[in-house]
Amino acid sequence: MIKQYLLSPGPTPIPNEVSLAMSKTMIHHRTPEFAESFNEARTGLKTLFGTDNDVLMFASSGTGAMEAAVANLFSPKEKVLVVNGGKFGERWLRISQAFDLEVIEIKVEWGKAVRVSEVKQQLDAHPDLKGILVQASETSTAVVHPVREIAELTRDNGPLLVVDGVTAVGVLPVAMDAWGIDVLVTGSQKALMLPPGLGFIGLSDRAWAKTREAKSHRFYFDLQLEKKGQSKGSTAFTPAVSLVFGLCAALRMMKNEGLDRVYARHERMARATRAAAVALGLRLLAPDDPSPAVTGIYVPEGADGDALLDYLRARMGITFAEGQDHLQGKIVRIAHVGHMGAFDVIIAISGLEMAFKKFGLAVTLGQGVAAAQDVLMEALD
Amino acid sequence: MIKQYLLSPGPTPIPNEVSLAMSKTMIHHRTPEFAESFNEARTGLKTLFGTDNDVLMFASSGTGAMEAAVANLFSPKEKVLVVNGGKFGERWLRISQAFDLEVIEIKVEWGKAVRVSEVKQQLDAHPDLKGILVQASETSTAVVHPVREIAELTRDNGPLLVVDGVTAVGVLPVAMDAWGIDVLVTGSQKALMLPPGLGFIGLSDRAWAKTREAKSHRFYFDLQLEKKGQSKGSTAFTPAVSLVFGLCAALRMMKNEGLDRVYARHERMARATRAAAVALGLRLLAPDDPSPAVTGIYVPEGADGDALLDYLRARMGITFAEGQDHLQGKIVRIAHVGHMGAFDVIIAISGLEMAFKKFGLAVTLGQGVAAAQDVLMEALD
Repeated sequence: MIKQYLLSPGPTPIPNEVSLAMSKTMIHHRTPEFAESFNEARTGLKTLFGTDNDVLMFASSGTGAMEAAVANLFSPKEKVLVVNGGKFGERWLRISQAFDLEVIEIKVEWGKAVRVSEVKQQLDAHPDLKGILVQASETSTAVVHPVREIAELTRDNGPLLVVDGVTAVGVLPVAMDAWGIDVLVTGSQKALMLPPGLGFIGLSDRAWAKTREAKSHRFYFDLQLEKKGQSKGSTAFTPAVSLVFGLCAALRMMKNEGLDRVYARHERMARATRAAAVALGLRLLAPDDPSPAVTGIYVPEGADGDALLDYLRARMGITFAEGQDHLQGKIVRIAHVGHMGAFDVIIAISGLEMAFKKFGLAVTLGQGVAAAQDVLMEALD
Repeated sequence: MIKQYLLSPGPTPIPNEVSLAMSKTMIHHRTPEFAESFNEARTGLKTLFGTDNDVLMFASSGTGAMEAAVANLFSPKEKVLVVNGGKFGERWLRISQAFDLEVIEIKVEWGKAVRVSEVKQQLDAHPDLKGILVQASETSTAVVHPVREIAELTRDNGPLLVVDGVTAVGVLPVAMDAWGIDVLVTGSQKALMLPPGLGFIGLSDRAWAKTREAKSHRFYFDLQLEKKGQSKGSTAFTPAVSLVFGLCAALRMMKNEGLDRVYARHERMARATRAAAVALGLRLLAPDDPSPAVTGIYVPEGADGDALLDYLRARMGITFAEGQDHLQGKIVRIAHVGHMGAFDVIIAISGLEMAFKKFGLAVTLGQGVAAAQDVLMEALD
């Protein structure tokens, strides 16, 4: 019997309240009963996105919602700026290329946030830019990009700011309308505490206007079609009914906790994890602009990070995320997203300490835990 | 959002495998389909109890099975010896009195195990004893009694040895046939990882013979009636169908893990908890004969244990058990029963450390955790 602890940045653990809601009797999706749940979810999503406009949902992963943004906003040969600082920046690049956009790329060193000055420079150099595509939180490198500051450059009359908020929405404040974000995208399996299978997208008025001009091919992800359908209480095509039931439960849980408290909890868990890493003498992947969703930690020089993660999963039941591409084997990524709390940090750090010791790496058991406890105690009054 | 950690000695956490099995479609209990599950459970229970005889189940709590033992084995005015070293020893006493037995009581100081020599003395002093009633693990005082040694005194021709194994069966080895235990009783909500609602009882041939003579009143708990019914694939009265589905799943999990590993896991969790308590300078309730099911720890002098437990539950989501009677407010009881593993110990100890600090008690964060980690690492190879 090895209890399982899912501490990866998606899928994330599902709370019982959500599982129970998803177990409700299946119903037809063109009924007043479904519309009631659907509309409840739509209302909750607006609050979560910080927008008065519609937030639409698709039966898709988050990548589907990313494609919806590109396919509905831009036409072939239009020029967009992509901030590429990790695997998900790279995804914006690949989607843009698949839709024949002309891409200006800002390559960002993994573990760093894009500098606002560099975005400004590209904006000045390319007055014909139609969009900027960026992550609010780049999951692969455990970094937050300064989307609020970028929005200052684009709002009102600049290119459309398209933000992948997959590990940001519900983790840290991302206020669409207040900040002037034009498109915000997320998925169900992160802060929303659901299984994968729902993609979400919100658009500003400027972005909606642009969808009427864009010539890219689209059908399943056609936002005008969906906007019409979803305002009537269902999706254009068959919705993921059970996930919508679960979504209502998850949004209610977040509302009950209070979004400010949700954000504070994520920030505190991440800070406790970083404090533990530092106490253990480990190096952080993103010391300067760390994401509250996930913490990247370098394994000690000479250690095999992949073997460490395999061991943690197989022998201790702990699933962390590995490093990708050139970071493969060199880092572990510990998530703090969704249905996680103080003791998930404790489990992560105590497990890491024990695995280090087992692998013959220098570690003092309990030292990282104590540093994490110190931070986590802030929540206790 | 405060995640909940149920670390009390029953009910204990329910594994998903069991929850899913209990969610199966309801069926009628006089059908071949139910008999199939029922018989699978019966077979698994025999292995668990270490007996070739039937293990019967009731839709009742463990106390129902305790009553079944008394009501079916003894007649009014018959003399029994009760080992009373805690709340559950006291329960044997109360049941025996309710059935008008003549009770010889061995009072045992809370936190101590009964001495075999004292049992021997009473056996010699009362040659007309018909039974000895004892706990294998006294949950209220976190103690194990030496039932194996007591069985050496009674087997073959002594009084019937009736053992409450509620926090022992599935936690530590209790080999009914091999040790010569006459009656062994347990409940569903401990090591069997089920919700409360099933009571179990196994009887030796000697005990079965005695059931034919006993004159005490019984109907629902009539063992002869049940034996006949259960050998045909259902209980005499309506069985708790879903719990039986869950029982099959739980027994399969225990079989897959291997009973020896299950016992070793419990023993290791308890030892890690004791090591942590000692490292934190705390006093154990039962240092000499500790139960692997639960560890009793005195709170520091002057601290309010009840307030501490309330705080842990309300602010940190951790449910420990309190002390009872004269130990109320003076101890915490941390369980290691059923679906629990290494990180449940870590959660318990790190939570206790943080609560101590919050209450202004002397504590070094991480010190208990490190001691626990040291022990828990034995399981890692």
